[in-house]
Amino acid sequence: MTVKALIFDVFGSLVDWRSSVAREIGLMAAKKGVDLNATDLAVAWRAEYQPAMERIRSGGRGYIRLEVLHRENLEIVLERAGLSEAFDGSEKDTLNTAWEKLDPWSDVVPGLTSLKQSPHLIAPCSNGSIAMMTRLARYAGFPWDAIVGAEIGQNYKPMPEVYQRSAAALGFAPDEVMMVAAHNNDLAAARDAGLKTGFFPRPTEHGPGQTIDLEAEQDWDIVARDLPELVSQL
Amino acid sequence: MTVKALIFDVFGSLVDWRSSVAREIGLMAAKKGVDLNATDLAVAWRAEYQPAMERIRSGGRGYIRLEVLHRENLEIVLERAGLSEAFDGSEKDTLNTAWEKLDPWSDVVPGLTSLKQSPHLIAPCSNGSIAMMTRLARYAGFPWDAIVGAEIGQNYKPMPEVYQRSAAALGFAPDEVMMVAAHNNDLAAARDAGLKTGFFPRPTEHGPGQTIDLEAEQDWDIVARDLPELVSQL
Repeated sequence: MTVKALIFDVFGSLVDWRSSVAREIGLMAAKKGVDLNATDLAVAWRAEYQPAMERIRSGGRGYIRLEVLHRENLEIVLERAGLSEAFDGSEKDTLNTAWEKLDPWSDVVPGLTSLKQSPHLIAPCSNGSIAMMTRLARYAGFPWDAIVGAEIGQNYKPMPEVYQRSAAALGFAPDEVMMVAAHNNDLAAARDAGLKTGFFPRPTEHGPGQTIDLEAEQDWDIVARDLPELVSQL
Repeated sequence: MTVKALIFDVFGSLVDWRSSVAREIGLMAAKKGVDLNATDLAVAWRAEYQPAMERIRSGGRGYIRLEVLHRENLEIVLERAGLSEAFDGSEKDTLNTAWEKLDPWSDVVPGLTSLKQSPHLIAPCSNGSIAMMTRLARYAGFPWDAIVGAEIGQNYKPMPEVYQRSAAALGFAPDEVMMVAAHNNDLAAARDAGLKTGFFPRPTEHGPGQTIDLEAEQDWDIVARDLPELVSQL
């Protein structure tokens, strides 16, 4: 197996979006004296993610960057929670940047840093935009070589062109690139698109009662416990 | 002046393409026992750069990445020099990677490293592709936050969409971004596209007899001696 680049799912696989977004919501709520359940709101916000992307994947809407979808979805979930008047537009814009302040799981920076010393190129292949991934990398300390993903593919995962155009942008054929994720469905789509696949679980991404993605559901090219173990298997 | 990101011309402004490409040609020629003038060949190769891009800028050809244009141009200049049989296809492919092995001017890595510690985002805005810029960054040690430029704009500088889409991909309005280059014509186009501009000269880019771009030809927002001095003026 000749893997020349590793591209990574980010939300959930590399960063703990749930507790990080809840923290940012909680900070804003405390500042404004607003009573809300920050974790519930973070989960509700994330629940609008797939439907919003699906309108684009299905062709009902042209490609729009994820920060714009997130901002629209924030209005939806605040309205539903009776909180649409609790924050002004500028405060909602600040809340929207919560998705650029996501804490990495503890093994991620050491794993990426060791890859950066290896011949393998590394890049995020996220549904987040180049702007989001750039800011998140500064926040979290991710030493990316380049940023590929949805904006390069002008569509959203799991559409095959996102994986294929990401590999091509790095100058490689699909089978020279490994998609790394903690989500079996992301890897299934990457494999269908011709890429190699690497898995490790994130059993608390969705909180204490998580039932999905606790283990590999196919014979991925590498199955590991975390990123450094995946790197050691390369 | 609120500059939130700096984007950089690369060939000539950050790296010494002329002596680096000549070195790589010289190494391959020595290996094969081929008699040639490596600097002349490097300069002839570079001379095909603008005409090849012009066919794309004028609409005569869709966007094609620079490494493909370079490879076509290599055939042209070898043929003209009577050297088209001197190297096989694989050796020509290796020669083509000379453009990913360009030595930075000595002030560049210190300057970019200090910017990486600042709030400013940094990215190349080159006519080189994402794949080329990624490999060059590994070779030269450039700590980019993202890679923008021609491939993001799907056209070549100095077309305005290259600057504008590069700024947008970083999440900024054009006037929040400074284009930095040692070439007055690049900065003139960036200014027309709405960006801020920063200049320092590279008086030996074209060798000892250089006559162009020895000084700023307009009142660029910053004019400096080199990159660290430009950073100190921000």
